[in-house]
Amino acid sequence: MTVVLKLGGSVITEKDTPDTIDGDALADAADAIAASGVTDLVLVHGGGSFGHPHAAAHDVSRTEGTQDVAAVREIHGAMRELNDAVCDGLVERGVPAVPHHPHSAGHRDADGTLSLPTDPIAAKRDEGFVPVLHGDVVTHIGSGVTILSGDELVVALAEGLSAERVGVCSTVPGVLDDDGEVIPAIENYADVRRYLGGSDDTDVTGGMAAKVHALLGLRAPASVFGPDALADFLGGEQPGTLIR
Amino acid sequence: MTVVLKLGGSVITEKDTPDTIDGDALADAADAIAASGVTDLVLVHGGGSFGHPHAAAHDVSRTEGTQDVAAVREIHGAMRELNDAVCDGLVERGVPAVPHHPHSAGHRDADGTLSLPTDPIAAKRDEGFVPVLHGDVVTHIGSGVTILSGDELVVALAEGLSAERVGVCSTVPGVLDDDGEVIPAIENYADVRRYLGGSDDTDVTGGMAAKVHALLGLRAPASVFGPDALADFLGGEQPGTLIR
Repeated sequence: MTVVLKLGGSVITEKDTPDTIDGDALADAADAIAASGVTDLVLVHGGGSFGHPHAAAHDVSRTEGTQDVAAVREIHGAMRELNDAVCDGLVERGVPAVPHHPHSAGHRDADGTLSLPTDPIAAKRDEGFVPVLHGDVVTHIGSGVTILSGDELVVALAEGLSAERVGVCSTVPGVLDDDGEVIPAIENYADVRRYLGGSDDTDVTGGMAAKVHALLGLRAPASVFGPDALADFLGGEQPGTLIR
Repeated sequence: MTVVLKLGGSVITEKDTPDTIDGDALADAADAIAASGVTDLVLVHGGGSFGHPHAAAHDVSRTEGTQDVAAVREIHGAMRELNDAVCDGLVERGVPAVPHHPHSAGHRDADGTLSLPTDPIAAKRDEGFVPVLHGDVVTHIGSGVTILSGDELVVALAEGLSAERVGVCSTVPGVLDDDGEVIPAIENYADVRRYLGGSDDTDVTGGMAAKVHALLGLRAPASVFGPDALADFLGGEQPGTLIR
């Protein structure tokens, strides 16, 4: 049973200090993953303070590209450094984590469609490794490179690997309503649109609205939850908000 | 016109000192590449003193695998370090080199057949970057990971990218006969078998015999030459031994 789990970039990094890991948060997450015993696991992490400042400095986004090789190497290098730290934390606790760098693994067509071959990732999983992907720069035909977000990776991996469960560990305990309460389940975007501020077009931008939109499109049930609920999710529970 | 060029690991590293770059040789190679003006270039480098000692320490080869995640990360990490140095040397000279790590890009089936999607590599080339691949560990179904050599990559890239020219820059000035003279051209393995010591089976092992065997199978002409002839090769000449 394949589980795709994303650790939000702002969960594992100090959001306001560039290129700085939140060591306690990363240790807690790695402890929960190691203790869970879940084996068919594919991990993704976001960029947090490693990805976003470098991307912003070079005006690179999901749609705005660059052909500046220095920018490519700076953004990719920062994300590889964070990825190394995540893998280190996991390996120290006995989780067989190996890197899987999207910059070397996939690309976008001219219209922005992501091609990410999942056979090499499935092979890692099947050989007992835990592949760890991350937000990255990927080649984008006609635009140089653009940003591939962790959230996009979650969707591509869940579909490509036919995941049974998807978890998104964020800094908030779930999708919140106007009173700050966690919405237990979402089956329809229209029901929650008023809380998220997004439109119901497919080109919504912005964190939670885009996440909910994308996760509603998956075949697998997806949970959005906070760091304290990571162990519960890995134990088979459905903490936070269940999106299906 | 796509050119696939391999820089031998023993050309750019100090062969007898683990994890040590031959800075002068790397600078010379980077100078020649930068001065050539060749743009549709895909580079490969071998492991030299970064790859082989770590692979040997963990008894990993093309056919003998490991599932030890520490071994995987050690070998891959050393090769990534060498790759960073190669990319640095190129970028400093204005060549838009970007890493392409085989561990994240491909895998082997149970029978050892390599699957290496070349669309992401072609995308980098088409966007004006020079992808730089390297010998690496790749997932091997049933065996954990095994070694993917630079020579195997040259073959996979030449075919997958329909390269017009292939160059293998080695420490020797070409394929040598028993008198130590460069054989100018090879069109048939049987003609040179007596110099190479290999069999004419497809499973030959050993450096030059395996190289010649593999390069004879390519549609593109391939040249095997020494570091001093790199500029000539990139200028369109056919130094050393031409294999077609």
